[in-house]
Amino acid sequence: MSSRIVTIVGVGLIGGSIGLALKKRGLAREVRGLGRRRESLDEAKALGAIDAGYVDPAPALANADLVVLCTPVDQIAEQAIAYARLCKPGVLLTDAGSTKYQIVTQIEGRLPSGVAFVGSHPLAGSERKGPAFADAELFQDRWTVVTPTTLTDATALAEVVALWTSLGSRVKRMSPAEHDQALALTSHLPHLIASALAGLLPADLVELAASGFRDTTRIAAGDSALWLAIFEHNRSALLTRLADFESRIAEYRRALEQRDPARLRTLWEQGKDVRDGLGR
Amino acid sequence: MSSRIVTIVGVGLIGGSIGLALKKRGLAREVRGLGRRRESLDEAKALGAIDAGYVDPAPALANADLVVLCTPVDQIAEQAIAYARLCKPGVLLTDAGSTKYQIVTQIEGRLPSGVAFVGSHPLAGSERKGPAFADAELFQDRWTVVTPTTLTDATALAEVVALWTSLGSRVKRMSPAEHDQALALTSHLPHLIASALAGLLPADLVELAASGFRDTTRIAAGDSALWLAIFEHNRSALLTRLADFESRIAEYRRALEQRDPARLRTLWEQGKDVRDGLGR
Repeated sequence: MSSRIVTIVGVGLIGGSIGLALKKRGLAREVRGLGRRRESLDEAKALGAIDAGYVDPAPALANADLVVLCTPVDQIAEQAIAYARLCKPGVLLTDAGSTKYQIVTQIEGRLPSGVAFVGSHPLAGSERKGPAFADAELFQDRWTVVTPTTLTDATALAEVVALWTSLGSRVKRMSPAEHDQALALTSHLPHLIASALAGLLPADLVELAASGFRDTTRIAAGDSALWLAIFEHNRSALLTRLADFESRIAEYRRALEQRDPARLRTLWEQGKDVRDGLGR
Repeated sequence: MSSRIVTIVGVGLIGGSIGLALKKRGLAREVRGLGRRRESLDEAKALGAIDAGYVDPAPALANADLVVLCTPVDQIAEQAIAYARLCKPGVLLTDAGSTKYQIVTQIEGRLPSGVAFVGSHPLAGSERKGPAFADAELFQDRWTVVTPTTLTDATALAEVVALWTSLGSRVKRMSPAEHDQALALTSHLPHLIASALAGLLPADLVELAASGFRDTTRIAAGDSALWLAIFEHNRSALLTRLADFESRIAEYRRALEQRDPARLRTLWEQGKDVRDGLGR
């Protein structure tokens, strides 16, 4: 591992953290950053997340052994297909996108022979954006989902599992569709809910929004383009989870309307049991 | 202030924090705790939050200058009325309850002459419970709402404002009804939403619930009895806020169903603008 050249596409919070973690742990001979904005690349280099920054794909990808796509979900498939042609045979591609089904199905069968791709999603985001928030320990003890299909090369899968493990992450394997169904509930729905709640707060009540409101809405500060692309990618699963949430909220409403404290207690305690189980 | 005797009723997170803050800042000659469970009183005393603990109200309240009721909202009015009879003339009563209208209206006109009451709500809770989580700085730079009415004694109001200010808090005056309308949105609705979302998570997806899900549901771990009493006290305002939230969620759903990215972007950016304004 330590002799390879790694190219990170998109040196934001996730890409920058991968770079820092690779370098801190001595897991690459060279870490290159590829991006559109010179400013972010310079910042990532200054922070020690990459050795060199490129806006031109060809030199960034020349002789790379591993390419990690850390761009918004609506750019990953297109970039994987375009960049694969600039890579040497034997290169391994993976990504860090929050959705998997569209990305994996768009890429599969469209890469040159000798180029392998395995989808990944490290569950380690934040509402914060940019390399300044990168952290070499971001993946430590977190989960990363890798999403092989029946077409995935077994060696490539093992290498991607080893990559995330080497960064400190625990790894779970799921199909791309299973991943998206699960994340619709555990991540995409909470973002939608947080956003809807935040949007209800009028300016004159801002001072009365204490830690509870802040915690519940924190992720509503996420980047617009990033989250709109995720919602669009996972639209169908998100709509299903949203319908489940609307039904559950309606149960609380009926219990309040009907002054049914026993029902309200049952609902509250079900939520509390789950949340207590998650820890802080 | 420093020569007074203060009795704190209920030495949990809030009551314990008031005791610690009073003692750290030298704002009382004696801080007494009154509670039902000897164990909590002993713990509060060991932590330095109170000088002495009582399960018997009469000695706890004898000669007290200030009584702060930090019990669940469904106990405060009853205790204020019962305990006022055990206090000396000139005593000042306040509380720390999360609802105000029912509490204030139940107490007003039912206290002996010479006993003043002013409703308070320090916005400084937590999903954690008990004196072990008490913190002398809990109120520093937070807001406390005090809720005078046309019947409130001006001197008593000034003293209660001075109390919270002396503990580090900023103070806002609102009517009890205004308070409850506001907190229905900024606190009670977020608790209901967090609970409903937490309750949807099946056991097999717990590992995929990362920081976003955890933040959004954190307050669902709150104490059942405490939160059910708050929901019941503020039922009407909460139902109104819940209807607003259901309407807003439905807007996101329609935008997703109709594949209307412009509408979805507007909704997201409205929430993001609000949340960005709140800071971390």
